[in-house]
Amino acid sequence: MAHGNKVLVGQSGGPTAAINASLAGVFSTASSLGLDVIGMRYGIQGLLDGRTVRLSHYLSRPLDAKFLRMTPASWLGSCRYKLPDVEQDDAPYRQLMDIFCELGVGSVLYIGGNDSMDTIHKLSLYGDAVGSPIRFVGVPKTIDNDLVGTDHTPGFGSAAKFIATTMAEVARDSDVYDLKSVTFVEIMGRDAGWLAGSACLAGTSESPCPDLVLLPEAPVTEDQLIERLSTLLGEKNTVVVAVSEGLRRPDGTLMCEQWERAADGSRLDAFGHVASLSGTSRYLASVVRSELGCKTRAVELSTLQRCASHIASATDLDEAFRQGGAGVLAASDGRTGVMCALERMTNHPYVVESVLADVHEVANKARPVPRDWIAEDGMGVTSRFEDYARPLIGGEVSQVYIDGIPRHIESL
Amino acid sequence: MAHGNKVLVGQSGGPTAAINASLAGVFSTASSLGLDVIGMRYGIQGLLDGRTVRLSHYLSRPLDAKFLRMTPASWLGSCRYKLPDVEQDDAPYRQLMDIFCELGVGSVLYIGGNDSMDTIHKLSLYGDAVGSPIRFVGVPKTIDNDLVGTDHTPGFGSAAKFIATTMAEVARDSDVYDLKSVTFVEIMGRDAGWLAGSACLAGTSESPCPDLVLLPEAPVTEDQLIERLSTLLGEKNTVVVAVSEGLRRPDGTLMCEQWERAADGSRLDAFGHVASLSGTSRYLASVVRSELGCKTRAVELSTLQRCASHIASATDLDEAFRQGGAGVLAASDGRTGVMCALERMTNHPYVVESVLADVHEVANKARPVPRDWIAEDGMGVTSRFEDYARPLIGGEVSQVYIDGIPRHIESL
Repeated sequence: MAHGNKVLVGQSGGPTAAINASLAGVFSTASSLGLDVIGMRYGIQGLLDGRTVRLSHYLSRPLDAKFLRMTPASWLGSCRYKLPDVEQDDAPYRQLMDIFCELGVGSVLYIGGNDSMDTIHKLSLYGDAVGSPIRFVGVPKTIDNDLVGTDHTPGFGSAAKFIATTMAEVARDSDVYDLKSVTFVEIMGRDAGWLAGSACLAGTSESPCPDLVLLPEAPVTEDQLIERLSTLLGEKNTVVVAVSEGLRRPDGTLMCEQWERAADGSRLDAFGHVASLSGTSRYLASVVRSELGCKTRAVELSTLQRCASHIASATDLDEAFRQGGAGVLAASDGRTGVMCALERMTNHPYVVESVLADVHEVANKARPVPRDWIAEDGMGVTSRFEDYARPLIGGEVSQVYIDGIPRHIESL
Repeated sequence: MAHGNKVLVGQSGGPTAAINASLAGVFSTASSLGLDVIGMRYGIQGLLDGRTVRLSHYLSRPLDAKFLRMTPASWLGSCRYKLPDVEQDDAPYRQLMDIFCELGVGSVLYIGGNDSMDTIHKLSLYGDAVGSPIRFVGVPKTIDNDLVGTDHTPGFGSAAKFIATTMAEVARDSDVYDLKSVTFVEIMGRDAGWLAGSACLAGTSESPCPDLVLLPEAPVTEDQLIERLSTLLGEKNTVVVAVSEGLRRPDGTLMCEQWERAADGSRLDAFGHVASLSGTSRYLASVVRSELGCKTRAVELSTLQRCASHIASATDLDEAFRQGGAGVLAASDGRTGVMCALERMTNHPYVVESVLADVHEVANKARPVPRDWIAEDGMGVTSRFEDYARPLIGGEVSQVYIDGIPRHIESL
């Protein structure tokens, strides 16, 4: 069967506030080139089950694409499917190639993070090996900002804007009583501290906020933290700490694992099973309350930080939209095995360009916060971090409010 | 010493996104009447320590009052001080009267919830008893919306707007994978379900959201909930539940207390102390995971729901501002022992008027969600609730964004 020129697009991995903007960008640019766009429902996994939708059917009115752009999470649905090594099992590859042919697909765009780039990496190698003319292009998205080969990833800026904004608000909220208190705000990031670091954007030059930032890249002990907090509480009433859920001790153990050890296996749920634990902030609040005797509070930003499209960064959504379009153009140019990356040309003014990165150099790597962007004592970030992150939260999105809440596109 | 005509204003109780708008309203109306405004630092408690500020010193530029209006939490600081019964101990009353005289105060405005109205109630009775010409006026604020004598309370609408908006976003986020899941979103409200109920505003007529709303006023058992969820999961993949932190069983026990019993006292913190517990959503997520075997998730909206001024309701901030001004006018008219209440004249269109309620009828009472605004099975709210709450989240506030985050007034 002859290959076609349709664009097949999927979304994969954790949802963000910007991944639908990239999808809207794919649709917009493909449509302008006269190309049909087919969406995978639930990523590669749904595709293997034959689940697809024709986007033009759902995005026929101009407002549809506008609402899609401002709707959080993965409109097409997502998956966490990892292709097997082709040497071990090439069945899914053959099945996918058959599906691509059947659908008349000329290019496959996959919007996602590290695992999604792994999928593009493997499919493009397989495509080359079997002489397929289909182009495979990755469009990056992850709030974690830990992809290599790009200045930053769409989705990060919006998460950072929510984190910085709510951090400033929580800091106000924490400071109303005339007593000593420590508030821990727990932020996503199992291995990389980009999101926790972005809490620094809550501060202004006159009033830095939060007081401390604790990242997975900079392990601390409870004793070190207590000592630092004790000093801070000597200077001020209210201390606010941004902490990565993935904060570790120097021996590599996660802070939140202490909960399990402390309760000696007896921290059970209502039916006698060990409860799944997160709770880095709850753990630290408990330790500090015991040690310093002050009021403490734990605030988990939870999934809100990745889906709060009501306070998305306009810069982020613009770039996400643009990268979706760049993916279509790259495929049209015959490029395959590439990821649509962002390169920062200048920071003052902030100018980024769309470039293509070799996806084989991107997949299965991770980028931590550089050591010299972290304060010497490991409990904060430097001005280099702030210079890097500040432009990414710039600009506000004009949501359409109906009946008092932002309007999203109808679910599929 | 002669009494003066200065306005003394304080903020008390938990912070909200609207309490500073009321303070700005007090300042604006008092200034227009040529009255000086003195602020209590940390409420009555700070006042007893002689801590006051002259507001005109800090709000001299027009932008200051604008920023104040949009800044979350209690700018003046707050307290949780309860005046003793005057028969038991009249010392604080005498001390306060001395302070009022010394400052040249003609009226005392206290912005707060139930405890603050109790303060106004007691001070006005004492003032009457000793023949003081000082007027004591309460300006309501509480996100809990549980004050009697007023249609609703400033602060509630902004919290409800944040809750509805994030509920809609979390529902999208929960629905991206092709699997069965239940998400519990935990909302403030120990005894009243106004805030949890406002989650229903996330829905539209085409797509109701969340699926269930669980209120303190409508106790349920775990078994009842499991049965209902089981039915729902037969119909759809993703179930989203709004749950009050104060959800109870029919026997009156709090859901979250189950955690303590399950662990049999052994749920300790790192230093062997019993950790303070909340976690209604975590408890329910654990129970449902065990019983139904599906993916579950617990999201606590935490303090964000009371301080998220970046998505405040314009209607709420307008009313809060206006009620602050109404307090000044009431005192100027010689009224004392009153609370500036809101009366809804019509709902379509939404029209409210400022009225004065007898604070003695308000203090120390609480208003639950009426039974006939709750669904028959106790797991949702009816259209009467939505009709009541929808206008209160209307309108968006034009925050001033500097460097990507909303600008707040400088801290005192």
